[in-house]
Amino acid sequence: MVTSTHDRPIVLVSNRGPVTFDRQDDGTLSSRRGAGGLVSGIGPLVAGTDTTWLAAAITDGDREAAAGGVVEADGFRVAMLAIDPDTYRAAYDVVSNEVLWFVHHGLFDRVRVPAFDHTWAESWSAYREMNHRFAQKVAEVAEPDAVVLVQDYHLCLVAARLAELRPDVDCVHFSHTPFAPPSWLGMLPEKTVLELLHGMAAHRACGFHATRWATEFADSARTLGGLSPQTFVAPLASDPDDIRQAAASPACAAALEDLEAVVGDRAVIGRVDRMELSKNHVRGFLAYDDLLARYPEHREQVVFVAEAYPSRSGVPGYADYRADVERTVAAINERWGTESWTPIVVDHEDDFPRSVALLRRADVLLVNPIRDGLNLVASEGALVNERNAVLALSPEAGAWERLRTGVLTVPPFDVAGTAEVLHRALIMPAGARADLAARLRALAEARTPRHWLADQLAAVTGADER
Amino acid sequence: MVTSTHDRPIVLVSNRGPVTFDRQDDGTLSSRRGAGGLVSGIGPLVAGTDTTWLAAAITDGDREAAAGGVVEADGFRVAMLAIDPDTYRAAYDVVSNEVLWFVHHGLFDRVRVPAFDHTWAESWSAYREMNHRFAQKVAEVAEPDAVVLVQDYHLCLVAARLAELRPDVDCVHFSHTPFAPPSWLGMLPEKTVLELLHGMAAHRACGFHATRWATEFADSARTLGGLSPQTFVAPLASDPDDIRQAAASPACAAALEDLEAVVGDRAVIGRVDRMELSKNHVRGFLAYDDLLARYPEHREQVVFVAEAYPSRSGVPGYADYRADVERTVAAINERWGTESWTPIVVDHEDDFPRSVALLRRADVLLVNPIRDGLNLVASEGALVNERNAVLALSPEAGAWERLRTGVLTVPPFDVAGTAEVLHRALIMPAGARADLAARLRALAEARTPRHWLADQLAAVTGADER
Repeated sequence: MVTSTHDRPIVLVSNRGPVTFDRQDDGTLSSRRGAGGLVSGIGPLVAGTDTTWLAAAITDGDREAAAGGVVEADGFRVAMLAIDPDTYRAAYDVVSNEVLWFVHHGLFDRVRVPAFDHTWAESWSAYREMNHRFAQKVAEVAEPDAVVLVQDYHLCLVAARLAELRPDVDCVHFSHTPFAPPSWLGMLPEKTVLELLHGMAAHRACGFHATRWATEFADSARTLGGLSPQTFVAPLASDPDDIRQAAASPACAAALEDLEAVVGDRAVIGRVDRMELSKNHVRGFLAYDDLLARYPEHREQVVFVAEAYPSRSGVPGYADYRADVERTVAAINERWGTESWTPIVVDHEDDFPRSVALLRRADVLLVNPIRDGLNLVASEGALVNERNAVLALSPEAGAWERLRTGVLTVPPFDVAGTAEVLHRALIMPAGARADLAARLRALAEARTPRHWLADQLAAVTGADER
Repeated sequence: MVTSTHDRPIVLVSNRGPVTFDRQDDGTLSSRRGAGGLVSGIGPLVAGTDTTWLAAAITDGDREAAAGGVVEADGFRVAMLAIDPDTYRAAYDVVSNEVLWFVHHGLFDRVRVPAFDHTWAESWSAYREMNHRFAQKVAEVAEPDAVVLVQDYHLCLVAARLAELRPDVDCVHFSHTPFAPPSWLGMLPEKTVLELLHGMAAHRACGFHATRWATEFADSARTLGGLSPQTFVAPLASDPDDIRQAAASPACAAALEDLEAVVGDRAVIGRVDRMELSKNHVRGFLAYDDLLARYPEHREQVVFVAEAYPSRSGVPGYADYRADVERTVAAINERWGTESWTPIVVDHEDDFPRSVALLRRADVLLVNPIRDGLNLVASEGALVNERNAVLALSPEAGAWERLRTGVLTVPPFDVAGTAEVLHRALIMPAGARADLAARLRALAEARTPRHWLADQLAAVTGADER
């Protein structure tokens, strides 16, 4: 049976919603657009369509909005789900961010962590509870025959419960992270692994940003769960018009002026990422150090500018990571810096216009994660850069799969190899740079969030056809 | 073509040899039996056969012996290879023990290490050089049509060079470690990965202690190298007569008496391992802590005795590991200990009779590595224990594959789950204990080093048959 999905109503389900509600002094609720890649990427697509977006209530204002059922706000039709704070904390902080995020990105120092103690069973119960609450809420708000698009690792156990309550809806899952191969996922307690894999397999299909994550998910499902879930690959992409609009804004122009005042006419190596363990800041800076040591011609001639905005400072490991980064930067600036030249400039504020200004101005953009579901910055840089920047991209970023013919590939664990790539990028002749940048731009423009959404809807049909 | 290998001369090649040479005061060289699982396991088999054992010269006496060509010592026919100390240090310490050991056992804290800098190429050259020196030496000492059995991760690049020099010999490789799956091996620089995989694939076949390691090697060879090397599985096993002879020695009797004086008639949980990052001491002790917290009936009734002999204290991470272990033990003894009861007793001396005494006396033997090529202690315990000890064994030990129906399986990252297994082991009724122990003993006795050696020789023939 092939079902057309184009005219079916959609329920989009994610932990974080497209808007946040705040109570005003006059007692009314006001809404404001939320942050996050999902919202900026697909928000414009679903606003005004027959889509209901269900998300967890995070602020007090969200909780009040949750009581009101489905509401219209900022052009979205939104439902908020209020979850008991302790349950939410265990499900979100402990299970989702300290364990699932870590295992999918390979961030555990296995000699020491994870070490699941008797509190794990409670945390996992909270995760299950949160997922079942989401399922119940979807069951309430979904129109007949709706297509339910469940987003990300916070919500892997929605589909099975939902199928009991609403057999008329079709449920697809999409992971914005990588997925752990068997050797990593197998660290989790067996019951957890089985429930997680069966939970994901209960969807019509499970989608990922890259073939590799889909393959590793399928490996884990088969090896550890004896399951053969349907998978699909649908890389999200930046919307060219959106990011170019941001680049053309007065705020971005002002930020670019500030940046020019710092870097002058020096070549700029740029990076833009959260201070996230998987992003690999330290090895990136060490590679720059190696570059300056081995190729003295770049001294005084290059500035490495990093927009490194804060992230999850409450999760164990993140404060140490930031300290490592700062120590590394200080040592390199101490070693090479002169009165007129600071080799590395790091900005720890989350300032979107400044990030876009850096993407416009960079001569080389370094994106070297040790593992990253997609990495939107890789394509955003291509869309707004004005100097034919070379993108030095790790194959461990999901984006590499689609962009690889337009980039120089950096090996993320190989500092010396990364330094070589930075050198090649800096000395690349203008013609070759222009060719490579044109190829990258064409690849970046070839997909928009619309394709990503269409692929998810097609996965419902595709699953019927198998 | 099927070649009978039984009557072909053998060259056994390993980093560490069966004997060590020392210069005596009178100027002569004396030899003494070396340590290590390989020597104790297969030494008795090859002594007196048509086997030449080639190993690296480590002591000054070894270097002198190396100059003498093939020599007879302690019943072995031995050749020692003298390697430039700097080359050996880079090949052995840096490449073998800090990188290959770490990647095969999944010991890297990937957020920080490895970070290959420009010194890596030199270290890898030293490794290649050491391997080629071994190949040249094998070419010199091997009789016509010899079968060459290359042992372990220090020596992965011998075969190709040897094939150029001596096309008449057949070369098989055997890994005593696990092998890194693609997601781990891919952290190494691409050139290193390719050279390593091609080096291994140049053997007639590559052997492992467990199917899982063979599969992960094949995955890595295919995914990262486009190769399909022949593999075989041949678990090494303790020799029942050897270990029982050690158990019957006066030294062991004395050690057992010492142990009885410490533990009295309490139940004993025992563990015997090097202070090695992969052995998972801390989570084992935390599980014991959890056991005492949740099952008060075991307080004062159980002693956890650990023979934890020192290992690689010069390799980064090992001193911190030992400090973690000692801190954990001190905290648990502080929490639960009484005037008449020390909950955990750790012995850091490498004392074989004491280790065997513990294997004899234990009521539960905990072997919970996060990843371990085989683990001979698992079967040694079964061969000498006198109390129908329950073996609590991690599935991440290669030995688990063959012994699993005679053990309780412990999940190595799951502290609470390990505590449950320890509890079940301690309270298991006598009849069930006896049945399980008998099953384990039968499995342990079913294989000897002779089978392992025969499997390697058969792999030469098997490779012809494919």
